[in-house]
Amino acid sequence: MQVPGPSAREAASMYGTAVAVFLVILVAALQGSGPPESPFPYRVPLDPEGSLELSWNVSYTQETVYFQLLVRELKAGVLFGMSNRGELENADLVVLWTDGDSAYFGDAWSDEQGRIHLDSQQDYQLLQARRTPEGLCLLFKRPFGTCDPKDYLIEDGTVHLVYGVLEEPFRSLEAINTSELQIGLQRVQLLKPNISIPALPSDLLTMEIRAPDVLIPGKKTTYWCHITKLPDGFSRHHIVMYEPIVTKGNEALVHHMEVFQCSTQFERVPPFSGPCDSKMKPDQLNYCRHVLAAWALGAKAFYYPEEAGLAFGGAGSSRFLRLEVHYHNPLEIQGRRDSSGLRLYYTATLRRFDAGIMELGLVYTPLMAIPPQETAFVLTGYCTDKCTQMALPPSGIRIFASQLHTHLTGRKVVTVLARNGQEREIVNRDNHYSPHFQEIRMLKKVVSVHPGDVLITSCTYNTGDRDLATVGGFGILEEMCVNYVHYYPRTQLELCKSAVDAGFLRKYFHTVNRFNAEEVCTCPQASVPEQFASVPWNSFSRDMLKAVYGFAPISVHCNKSTAVRFPGEWDLQPLPKITSKLEEPTPRCPASRGQSPTSPTVVSIGGSGS
Amino acid sequence: MQVPGPSAREAASMYGTAVAVFLVILVAALQGSGPPESPFPYRVPLDPEGSLELSWNVSYTQETVYFQLLVRELKAGVLFGMSNRGELENADLVVLWTDGDSAYFGDAWSDEQGRIHLDSQQDYQLLQARRTPEGLCLLFKRPFGTCDPKDYLIEDGTVHLVYGVLEEPFRSLEAINTSELQIGLQRVQLLKPNISIPALPSDLLTMEIRAPDVLIPGKKTTYWCHITKLPDGFSRHHIVMYEPIVTKGNEALVHHMEVFQCSTQFERVPPFSGPCDSKMKPDQLNYCRHVLAAWALGAKAFYYPEEAGLAFGGAGSSRFLRLEVHYHNPLEIQGRRDSSGLRLYYTATLRRFDAGIMELGLVYTPLMAIPPQETAFVLTGYCTDKCTQMALPPSGIRIFASQLHTHLTGRKVVTVLARNGQEREIVNRDNHYSPHFQEIRMLKKVVSVHPGDVLITSCTYNTGDRDLATVGGFGILEEMCVNYVHYYPRTQLELCKSAVDAGFLRKYFHTVNRFNAEEVCTCPQASVPEQFASVPWNSFSRDMLKAVYGFAPISVHCNKSTAVRFPGEWDLQPLPKITSKLEEPTPRCPASRGQSPTSPTVVSIGGSGS
Repeated sequence: MQVPGPSAREAASMYGTAVAVFLVILVAALQGSGPPESPFPYRVPLDPEGSLELSWNVSYTQETVYFQLLVRELKAGVLFGMSNRGELENADLVVLWTDGDSAYFGDAWSDEQGRIHLDSQQDYQLLQARRTPEGLCLLFKRPFGTCDPKDYLIEDGTVHLVYGVLEEPFRSLEAINTSELQIGLQRVQLLKPNISIPALPSDLLTMEIRAPDVLIPGKKTTYWCHITKLPDGFSRHHIVMYEPIVTKGNEALVHHMEVFQCSTQFERVPPFSGPCDSKMKPDQLNYCRHVLAAWALGAKAFYYPEEAGLAFGGAGSSRFLRLEVHYHNPLEIQGRRDSSGLRLYYTATLRRFDAGIMELGLVYTPLMAIPPQETAFVLTGYCTDKCTQMALPPSGIRIFASQLHTHLTGRKVVTVLARNGQEREIVNRDNHYSPHFQEIRMLKKVVSVHPGDVLITSCTYNTGDRDLATVGGFGILEEMCVNYVHYYPRTQLELCKSAVDAGFLRKYFHTVNRFNAEEVCTCPQASVPEQFASVPWNSFSRDMLKAVYGFAPISVHCNKSTAVRFPGEWDLQPLPKITSKLEEPTPRCPASRGQSPTSPTVVSIGGSGS
Repeated sequence: MQVPGPSAREAASMYGTAVAVFLVILVAALQGSGPPESPFPYRVPLDPEGSLELSWNVSYTQETVYFQLLVRELKAGVLFGMSNRGELENADLVVLWTDGDSAYFGDAWSDEQGRIHLDSQQDYQLLQARRTPEGLCLLFKRPFGTCDPKDYLIEDGTVHLVYGVLEEPFRSLEAINTSELQIGLQRVQLLKPNISIPALPSDLLTMEIRAPDVLIPGKKTTYWCHITKLPDGFSRHHIVMYEPIVTKGNEALVHHMEVFQCSTQFERVPPFSGPCDSKMKPDQLNYCRHVLAAWALGAKAFYYPEEAGLAFGGAGSSRFLRLEVHYHNPLEIQGRRDSSGLRLYYTATLRRFDAGIMELGLVYTPLMAIPPQETAFVLTGYCTDKCTQMALPPSGIRIFASQLHTHLTGRKVVTVLARNGQEREIVNRDNHYSPHFQEIRMLKKVVSVHPGDVLITSCTYNTGDRDLATVGGFGILEEMCVNYVHYYPRTQLELCKSAVDAGFLRKYFHTVNRFNAEEVCTCPQASVPEQFASVPWNSFSRDMLKAVYGFAPISVHCNKSTAVRFPGEWDLQPLPKITSKLEEPTPRCPASRGQSPTSPTVVSIGGSGS
């Protein structure tokens, strides 16, 4: 493993930081086996100015990602790579660097202090380095998994890409001081599903659902409610696509938006535009809960499968819609105006199936809480066999898309399907989930759910920066654990979630007191958040809370759109018994480990100046 | 990675199983860097007949073990390797095999079903294959750690070696059916410390402490007590070495033996030879608790460091000794006679320091219990700062040897030294501990313990084959967690152990009842084992037990030899607070991974017959 020798001093004097260094021509030949079709269909700017641009493609047969990194204005080199949550420590990197004499491309990793080291196993493989009119274009590939313990495992879900710009030559990788570089991160779903955009009907219509000219309140969390109505005599249509309209400049304030249809029980819903918790709001708003469209920060347009659309309009369907916009305004900015909303694309030519959206996960209740200073605390919500038995058609439903949702401390989300006590398949999983990147994602494989199946949604939270317990609830500083699954054919089941039984949580508070000499106020006046706030967070109260959540019976919300439960007993339900878990897939090591180079690739350098 | 081709059929007919295959001459040259001194100082037969014999040496500078495997009567090949607990599944193997044409030496691994596969990375390196008058001699080496996820990490403590005899040629490794081979295991401490046997004094004397002609009771567990006395006027001597004398044929029945000295408070202890729990035993036996020598299954002779010896005899020292022999007789064999004991080597020329033995870990009490069906349940015992503060001299003590002890479900044992709330060093650790191999081991590095230090001993148990809780206690079906540390200079502290506070365990039983509708009898008549036997073992009662053991205050036994506690309050002591843990050392990958071969080494074959 020869790392280029030390000639940095001379090199620096030869070149200087003002002189651009250019890489000319490829070393390794493009290895015939590139992916088919459009070579790099996915594209994202890495830095805010777009001077680094990544395009990529995925070969599922080779289990390899092909990257094309465009460096518009090359200085002395670039870092690019992946890390758990976008930090430049413990990152898996490719580095293009020069020692002043030669330029090198190498697979590297950074340690806990952000120091960079060459990898003993070179798994990023350079395919081409080419000058184009736009800049230097580096083509390289990486297997999903490498079996190198220093390497990042490319999985489904969010990938945090990191980048850095090298402004001057470095005598070795270890000499790079990452704290002085221009660095940044970008979140993407690297392993995009192999699904093409469905054909749109020729009679496509559009409708904008917006809350016009809202004065965003100068407080951290606002849910804004706005009532609109469909035109008189609007007949039954299918929504086949929708996209967000975010008022320019407010991109960071608009956290998520949903369009709900009201209950048919009301002839009319009075007009309203104001905070959803306003005392002035019409009562009927509480009965507008049938989700028509949902968008959250980071998502793009959403397409329904060709055989399904989301029905609205016509008989048996309310003309009234409620737009809910969640404004997240941590700096409490005053006076900002907003007209964000969603643009629906719909057709009168009904598709074969009505699609639906169902909420899985945890009920929004403070009964489910996360102790402070936890780095990976897991809360789990259940959609039980009893509920799917009652609410799903005999032939089941097909889930084709999923949107995971938590508030600020969410780090992982997963929904697993279980049948007869055995975990069968993952509905959706994101091991690097970020609340700042809540896309609706098409599933790689449609998941069939049958009556009697169980859907288990678990969220992992990091409350390392909090001093008090984080309870479940609507506020941005409270937490949620939700998977909005998109499926067809539509059923009456809109919400299938759970929370721990309140009586067992009272036993928890009592037991904490027994073991801690009466510190938690368990008097009837104290609310659950108050009780959680007074728990002494020692190993016992933490472990015991986990034990209670993992054992106590649950209250199941098996609800129709009207917030009405399906008939039956839903309290004090047993936790679903899971006798066999899905095995974690062990990442396949690339077949030919012996063939990959063990030292960086030398890239020949051409003339200077520009 | 070319695996030898398929010509097994022809080969089999050419050779047949009756025809021996001989390997002739080495392929890879002995790589100059062999370890110094005696090339292979450690030796052990692998199979009961000794037809496979392993010798080895350790290079700590290279972090490599050098192996010499002698195969006395080679058939078609051998397997040799290491696995977690001596099973041939998930094992890390070297295989010498023939396809009938050629012979091969390769690094391999076995999967969960015991199927053998060639390793993508060849970390066992053949140095020499040589015929000797005794048989085929294979010389090879392996780094401690390889960074190959399929490989075993060679650590301190017990290593379970596995072997197998190949009787016929195999066309490939995958064709080997391990269930049809002659296989076996042998436990060794592979990473022997670099310590030479101390010089023995010229005036060495010996004394045998044996219970003559005991009729071993036909029951599972017997602790046999036998009182002997030192000669009249026996002056102060130092024991400098001792070794076991086990009656031939009873090797599997004698589980452990200890020699205790009685308290000086008795002029005389009446003679006795019988079960330690006999109603006929003299009361004074309870006051014979000062350990002079301890041996357990698998241990060899024990040597004191040159500057220390264990004092006995003379004024202020009882003439009466109690030998305790633990007979483990699971088949309840009747009528077996035994005269096992220990042979002490001692000198009248006193060494500079008196040595002592101290018991660390858990008090023998049913308060500490392991639920059934646990695969890795951890119990922890503490020697607290308060006890070391009170009992150790200002300059501290030096621990030079350690013997770990559990009963049948023990799988790991570790003692960690902590100072000022921070873990500082490992006193002794065995991640592959076996109750069938309880050697007294010299420490690689003497550990200094100062007043105020904390010694934390944790044992990991596997109760996967049990249906009821396993409680702490003396019986072989009960459990222990003990580290006998050997140290100097001797102090009055003989035992520094802990157990959970009984009141908090009562709270545990009450809480289990609160959450499970009163299933555990918590009436005052019920004993702790009875209460544990009636716990419903669900996730709550398991998690909650862990939470209680990890939180509740402890009762500390900080005892002198007379079973008397040091003065002070030892009940309801807080658990020591540990703010920083020792990091698990990440195994160093061998420096030159790229250089190791990626396919098996071909070994040339000579003529047949013998």
